[in-house]
Amino acid sequence: MTPNQPGQAPKLPIAGVKNLVAVGSGKGGVGKTTVSVNLAVGLASLGYKVGLLDADVYGPNVPLMMGINKTPMAFGERIQPLEQFGVKIMSMGFLSPGDKPLVWRGPMLYSVIQQFLRGVDWGELDYLVIDLPPGTGDVQLSLIQTAPVTGAIVVTTPSDVSLEDARKAIHMFHQVRVPILGIVENMSFLICPHCSERIDVFSHGGGLRTAKQMDVHFLGELPLDPQIRIGGDSGQPIVLRKGEGEAFLTLARNAVARVDEVGKEQGPKIEIGE
Amino acid sequence: MTPNQPGQAPKLPIAGVKNLVAVGSGKGGVGKTTVSVNLAVGLASLGYKVGLLDADVYGPNVPLMMGINKTPMAFGERIQPLEQFGVKIMSMGFLSPGDKPLVWRGPMLYSVIQQFLRGVDWGELDYLVIDLPPGTGDVQLSLIQTAPVTGAIVVTTPSDVSLEDARKAIHMFHQVRVPILGIVENMSFLICPHCSERIDVFSHGGGLRTAKQMDVHFLGELPLDPQIRIGGDSGQPIVLRKGEGEAFLTLARNAVARVDEVGKEQGPKIEIGE
Repeated sequence: MTPNQPGQAPKLPIAGVKNLVAVGSGKGGVGKTTVSVNLAVGLASLGYKVGLLDADVYGPNVPLMMGINKTPMAFGERIQPLEQFGVKIMSMGFLSPGDKPLVWRGPMLYSVIQQFLRGVDWGELDYLVIDLPPGTGDVQLSLIQTAPVTGAIVVTTPSDVSLEDARKAIHMFHQVRVPILGIVENMSFLICPHCSERIDVFSHGGGLRTAKQMDVHFLGELPLDPQIRIGGDSGQPIVLRKGEGEAFLTLARNAVARVDEVGKEQGPKIEIGE
Repeated sequence: MTPNQPGQAPKLPIAGVKNLVAVGSGKGGVGKTTVSVNLAVGLASLGYKVGLLDADVYGPNVPLMMGINKTPMAFGERIQPLEQFGVKIMSMGFLSPGDKPLVWRGPMLYSVIQQFLRGVDWGELDYLVIDLPPGTGDVQLSLIQTAPVTGAIVVTTPSDVSLEDARKAIHMFHQVRVPILGIVENMSFLICPHCSERIDVFSHGGGLRTAKQMDVHFLGELPLDPQIRIGGDSGQPIVLRKGEGEAFLTLARNAVARVDEVGKEQGPKIEIGE
């Protein structure tokens, strides 16, 4: 009933990819994909070379939120990622478009994720953002045990229920020795579009409080803004909009800074298969 | 890549349990557990004998939302469920309290779920409400293939992203021949507590539209109300509050009516192991 020990499988580097940033959450529906998409597009708009791997194989929402859904081509044995808003993208949604559910068992999922990590022609990337499935299950564990993840971002809402699950996710990353870049509190507050008063729909401040309790960084608050949801539903990430996307650009800058810090804490990277 | 055929394992009835109602969602964070908890407590307050099985093994939020967390006792080989607000409850959260994540693999999960279904002393129940994990994965498939599920409720928000995943969940239930009791649109709208204007945070109307498109019933809209979240975070389900819980009582009545309809559509129950 304990997780596998870290280091069972060697964490082979992915050629050309400098940093792997995993975006996870204990609970679904907290905005993990919204954060992943806007972080990736935000990093690209800051001038970095960026990829986005949608590892949420059961609910791949990246194609909808990025406004792109075509069948990727393969040259030789390498799958070519699609590209949108300057970000190279791979998603299960490209391979099984439509409403049919994937009811795959664990081992098959594992091989798909490995294919996405190592069988895709990512090229030279500063950041490969991985949108993990929510929770602390099979796919998450397999992925972070076999991929050289630089650090993880944990997304939560301020509600106690979401925070309860976020703590579980942080423990999971600790157990498999993936550094936590920080916690993001999403849906932090809503500004009423009618009266401009602030509404704490899902409470407020729990992300920062949890970060302090668990001694991890806090990467910031993101508002509950209908425009963010509209951006997602329409395939136009809000970070692209001047002014309105500022919160996500700040998040991207904070993530870059934390990746640098984590790199220094760990010293030079020497891969000796653990 | 296709799911297992239905009927591989016999759907043995659970002694004493008249109806199994599964509450699922394509996406997490849409309020599936909020619906499960308030449905179960609502059914109990309408006079039915009710159990609540928290099958969301990775993120068991039922203990927090029901305001109860103790270690269940076992008499002989039967686990005694806990009881709160007139509802018998079993949850993984009772067995692994605290923040430690469960990073179990599929087969182990399967046996835990079977234990919860058949090793718990549920007694005589009119309704056993099952809070499924979000999505269309291993646990969902195992459970609905081996349990005699009377019907399923699919919870969604009105956002396109959530609806995309809800359609997948409906397809999954169709594939394994579990009747759909209906779709619930949660977080349908927010009434600003300051100016009383209505805010469609996650859009509006997609649940009904999807129900019509997919020829399934629509069980109603539930508001995005900070009081519902506060009820969940404080372990006092909102359905218990006079007046404020009316939407959930209506949902409970609709569910009862749909279970009756489904029973008539299928004729008398004769279990011959399919």
